[in-house]
Amino acid sequence: MTSLESDKILLAVTGWDPEVWQTEFAKSAPKRKLVLDSEADKNDVRYALVWKQRPGSLMNLPKLEVIFSLGAGVDHVFHDTQIPDVPIVRIVSPDLTMRMSEYVVWQVLDHHRLGLRYREQQKQRVWHEDRRQPAAHEVNVGILGLGVLGRDAAQKLRTLGFRVSGWSRRLQTIEGVTTHYGKDGLKDFLKDVDILVCLLPLTPDTKNILSMNIFAQLKPEGPLGAPVLINAGRGGLQNEADILAALDRGMLSAVTLDVFNKEPLPKDSPLWTHPQVIVTPHAAASSSPQALVPEIVAQIESYERGEPLKNIVDKAAQY
Amino acid sequence: MTSLESDKILLAVTGWDPEVWQTEFAKSAPKRKLVLDSEADKNDVRYALVWKQRPGSLMNLPKLEVIFSLGAGVDHVFHDTQIPDVPIVRIVSPDLTMRMSEYVVWQVLDHHRLGLRYREQQKQRVWHEDRRQPAAHEVNVGILGLGVLGRDAAQKLRTLGFRVSGWSRRLQTIEGVTTHYGKDGLKDFLKDVDILVCLLPLTPDTKNILSMNIFAQLKPEGPLGAPVLINAGRGGLQNEADILAALDRGMLSAVTLDVFNKEPLPKDSPLWTHPQVIVTPHAAASSSPQALVPEIVAQIESYERGEPLKNIVDKAAQY
Repeated sequence: MTSLESDKILLAVTGWDPEVWQTEFAKSAPKRKLVLDSEADKNDVRYALVWKQRPGSLMNLPKLEVIFSLGAGVDHVFHDTQIPDVPIVRIVSPDLTMRMSEYVVWQVLDHHRLGLRYREQQKQRVWHEDRRQPAAHEVNVGILGLGVLGRDAAQKLRTLGFRVSGWSRRLQTIEGVTTHYGKDGLKDFLKDVDILVCLLPLTPDTKNILSMNIFAQLKPEGPLGAPVLINAGRGGLQNEADILAALDRGMLSAVTLDVFNKEPLPKDSPLWTHPQVIVTPHAAASSSPQALVPEIVAQIESYERGEPLKNIVDKAAQY
Repeated sequence: MTSLESDKILLAVTGWDPEVWQTEFAKSAPKRKLVLDSEADKNDVRYALVWKQRPGSLMNLPKLEVIFSLGAGVDHVFHDTQIPDVPIVRIVSPDLTMRMSEYVVWQVLDHHRLGLRYREQQKQRVWHEDRRQPAAHEVNVGILGLGVLGRDAAQKLRTLGFRVSGWSRRLQTIEGVTTHYGKDGLKDFLKDVDILVCLLPLTPDTKNILSMNIFAQLKPEGPLGAPVLINAGRGGLQNEADILAALDRGMLSAVTLDVFNKEPLPKDSPLWTHPQVIVTPHAAASSSPQALVPEIVAQIESYERGEPLKNIVDKAAQY
């Protein structure tokens, strides 16, 4: 598994300017050759770095050994049904984890500390102190998905004093966090949640999970009036019509969405203007080429020294 | 110093409904007698609990031993120039500290994660990802005031990955935080600050400290374009005309103010409508009678067991 000078790295990305990645590779691994999907000479491609690759772009690469996803989620890889049978490695980057936890803590605090109300009051020039705010320990934040991102967010929310619970497909234990797992554990998890944070991967099992069926099982009342939903996972996890209906029926008091069924969010979506919806443009934890490229280069180097690949995707579960 | 059945506690508050305090006292110390400033029989008053007390209301209390401030700051006590020469004790409550740190972390993240920009984009239905966001470790949060509140906020911001520095009147050391002190240390502190958080007490020394002179010494550029100011201390710490001028000249990029020269903030204040100003109604860390009363009762009981009073105010420094 030693490195050969002719080895190439394919950069197969859509929606990204490849130049920033090229620049960072030139800095971190100046001797390695990076080729784009559009280029002709790909026989010597040994690694592929992908973000929403063009379907079929990973075929006919006889020397391909590893596919590296440039995002924490890998659903964008599986949109392409023609993927060769080589390991797919997910990015697990401290930089991405930090950013996602920032976003989760920011949005949990924004709801907990009445951001929507105070911004409306400011617009109306209304001074109303409303001294009775719940303390953090009176609020239970429930995290759907306890991978690296969910676990880090859970710990940071605990530091701020929130009660935290979590749900994942398989049992996870986190100090100070009540965890539930599997289909059977979902009901018990949901009934105690004031703020639901979704960090699940998008897979055939989780598609549309954020729907009326889930909202109806959340704690109906609570310190924030009604439960809050924050989705920073993928748009495919949510049923947007159900979210709007749950808001209108008071089953949800407010929602933060960073991801959407269709991105960019269409101009005519009612989510843009709903007074209880906070929209951010899929910006919760953007991959930073400056941070990720050195980490990918380090992964490639350890692989070439014969060390096992870490963070390999389970192709059956698609995450 | 044993308790006498005839001992009374005076509740001298303005702007607060005394009833919530009375209710909590009845729960926590049912045998103690609470009297209001408006009542006649105050000869046996041994303790006074005060929040912006009526000037002179603490005089002619021959048995008064201790004044307890119902807020973390004590400037509201010194508005009254007729204060008897007994110890004044400041509230140091885990509940207040947690709430203040929540507020500071919330507002630091709101600026760091482009809250003002994304809310404006949402209003315009604009999807613009702007992937180049600084990482937390590229941003230096500088905290003015390293009392209990400042130290707790510093530690929580560090957990989220921010670089944190601090300034106080006397030297304080906090693990992982660069600290400066005294008049001589202020310049060195300011020149490296991207987000300035003010948690100073309001004293004759700190009045109007947040003025052009300070803003001109902050790091002129940085990851957020220009420095950000967050004042969650007291309104008297800030020169509001200077803040507006600094925003207009680009010396500050954005400001969060929880406190104001005049509260409630007058309807005609330009702060309400400035696009780079976030206004909250003195709500950063409101005293919760439910949380504070049991702590005050515990302080009184330990004092009556002969233990020394904690958190005594330095009357010369007025904090």
